[in-house]
Amino acid sequence: MSEAARQVGIVGAGLIGASIGMALRAAGCPVLLRDIDDERVALAARLGAGQPWPTGQRVDHLVVAVPPRDTAAVLHAAQREQLAGTYSDVSSVKVRVYADAAAAGADLTSFCGAHPMAGGERNGPVAARADLFAGRAWVLCPSADTAVRALADARAIAEHCRATPVELAAEAHDEAVAAVSHVPQLVASLLAARLVDLPEASVGLAGQGLRDMLRIASSHPQLWAEVVAANAAPVRAVLAGLAADLAGLRAALDQATDARPEPAGAAVTDLLARGNAGRARLPGKHGSRATFTAVAVVVDDRPGTLARLFADVAEIGVNVEDLGLEHALGRPVGVAEVLVAPAAAARLLTELTTRGWPAHLS
Amino acid sequence: MSEAARQVGIVGAGLIGASIGMALRAAGCPVLLRDIDDERVALAARLGAGQPWPTGQRVDHLVVAVPPRDTAAVLHAAQREQLAGTYSDVSSVKVRVYADAAAAGADLTSFCGAHPMAGGERNGPVAARADLFAGRAWVLCPSADTAVRALADARAIAEHCRATPVELAAEAHDEAVAAVSHVPQLVASLLAARLVDLPEASVGLAGQGLRDMLRIASSHPQLWAEVVAANAAPVRAVLAGLAADLAGLRAALDQATDARPEPAGAAVTDLLARGNAGRARLPGKHGSRATFTAVAVVVDDRPGTLARLFADVAEIGVNVEDLGLEHALGRPVGVAEVLVAPAAAARLLTELTTRGWPAHLS
Repeated sequence: MSEAARQVGIVGAGLIGASIGMALRAAGCPVLLRDIDDERVALAARLGAGQPWPTGQRVDHLVVAVPPRDTAAVLHAAQREQLAGTYSDVSSVKVRVYADAAAAGADLTSFCGAHPMAGGERNGPVAARADLFAGRAWVLCPSADTAVRALADARAIAEHCRATPVELAAEAHDEAVAAVSHVPQLVASLLAARLVDLPEASVGLAGQGLRDMLRIASSHPQLWAEVVAANAAPVRAVLAGLAADLAGLRAALDQATDARPEPAGAAVTDLLARGNAGRARLPGKHGSRATFTAVAVVVDDRPGTLARLFADVAEIGVNVEDLGLEHALGRPVGVAEVLVAPAAAARLLTELTTRGWPAHLS
Repeated sequence: MSEAARQVGIVGAGLIGASIGMALRAAGCPVLLRDIDDERVALAARLGAGQPWPTGQRVDHLVVAVPPRDTAAVLHAAQREQLAGTYSDVSSVKVRVYADAAAAGADLTSFCGAHPMAGGERNGPVAARADLFAGRAWVLCPSADTAVRALADARAIAEHCRATPVELAAEAHDEAVAAVSHVPQLVASLLAARLVDLPEASVGLAGQGLRDMLRIASSHPQLWAEVVAANAAPVRAVLAGLAADLAGLRAALDQATDARPEPAGAAVTDLLARGNAGRARLPGKHGSRATFTAVAVVVDDRPGTLARLFADVAEIGVNVEDLGLEHALGRPVGVAEVLVAPAAAARLLTELTTRGWPAHLS
């Protein structure tokens, strides 16, 4: 696998499997595809993800790209057929997959568990694309039994897909995704569920903050049910911490009265301060913690306004680090937020204002 | 107040008061400013928010723009001085302000409670701007005692500030903001607090979904403590529903075992389905529920790339409804999401691809 020309096999021609196939093909690597559904293989092959796998042909590395609960069985079956020299997978939980693989009698020396962190709520080979993993983390979770050769091959797959390999123990991976992915999904759904019975006029007052929080609440229920069930223990641990904080907050609100609001105030102040601290730990662009300054520009709703704005930004010569567009309720006007390095913000603001844009630091 | 030329007084020259002053001045309306801090008045006046209030001068309408817990006392004092014909306020809770006003012996016929929904975590007259309320909801909460004239004057202030007036009973307002603003703030903080003790490598796996959910977790602790304490009962009710859902989810996860994951799966499926339903109720752009189609374009990190992209989008002639920019971890590449009307998406995708942009529907 150190050379792109070595052959890779992929079992499972869904979104992830087909996207890996496309990315490897783009990197010049021959790919064979296999799936319990022949039509999915034919479709993925037509989309450029590789060739249907001829019976009996052997590959250098095999990627098991099936749902978590089928991963161990597919791995074990492929090893019995001696389809590849080394193996990896893509499932979003790792401890459970290793336990299942060991229970099934799979060979753990030739296997390196892996998790490309991309895909989200999309599904099937039609949604696949060669750049799905570009710049994303691709977690590698070798076990104590994993051979160095299997780890190196799994890493090469990640690099061919232009992802960033991150090595973590399976337990650490599962705890991490519980906190940064699985519980956030559940919390978005818990919060969104509060809107189900709200009067129409109340829902109408929702602003951008709530919209941002609920974006992932439109995720697919059954997909997440399988993921959360397979990572139940780490998810339970994070939810226990959250439930304890919530119980403390509710107790403080219960103790407070109109005449003595202090317990509520103290509990909310403490919670928000801890939230500030947690929020500050999130990586910014390129994995750094750099924070940017937002220059807000009032824009109207006609085609071309954003083009003129970004043409001016480009002429001014500052690099845009992030973007946002907030729309006004009931009016053909919005606010575009252009995030730039703090050192560049004052100049951008001055030059935009000079060019007639209603801009301010936000 | 039906004519822009009638005189308005504002007590409290902070972010909200000074911004109202600027907006009214921009609408051609004379404004007098008053604050316990003379320097804030001088600063707000220099920024174009109005003139310092000469002792004894009377105005047509007075806006009380002080924190919730001081609102009733300031209203009552102004009424005793007979400073205005009608009064409104800006505080983010309404039942408590009415109760305090009644207890203080204020005249409720000349007062209309109001809540301009803008401002966020910013503070002070320096952050003020005339367009702060443009396109935002401005909730009007007349009591049963409120005179029609007071409601009409409060509505005129909202309209002069280019906000969208929304009439709601005080109780309905407080329940609405508990669900769409106060509890979402607490939930963002609860979730962010889970990151405080997480290993660095785990935090590094956080993606855009979590970043979006935690944006408001950087809000000011003391400000929110006062707001939540003043709206404790409606906040408690929403938190109780959320805590019940959370308890149900945790119980199901506790019952599930590796061999029998069904209870966890069923609970997660149910929760996510309800979250889907709640999320679908959120208003889209312009208060409608229209949903848009995202065309994702891989962009590099050099100045001018976004300008070229938006110039092409403008030439193609579709209207951009929303924007996003997701940055890749560790690489000078990102994905710009351009949200457009579903009917325009296929054409935009085709034309962008023809022009050489690596674009796909996302």
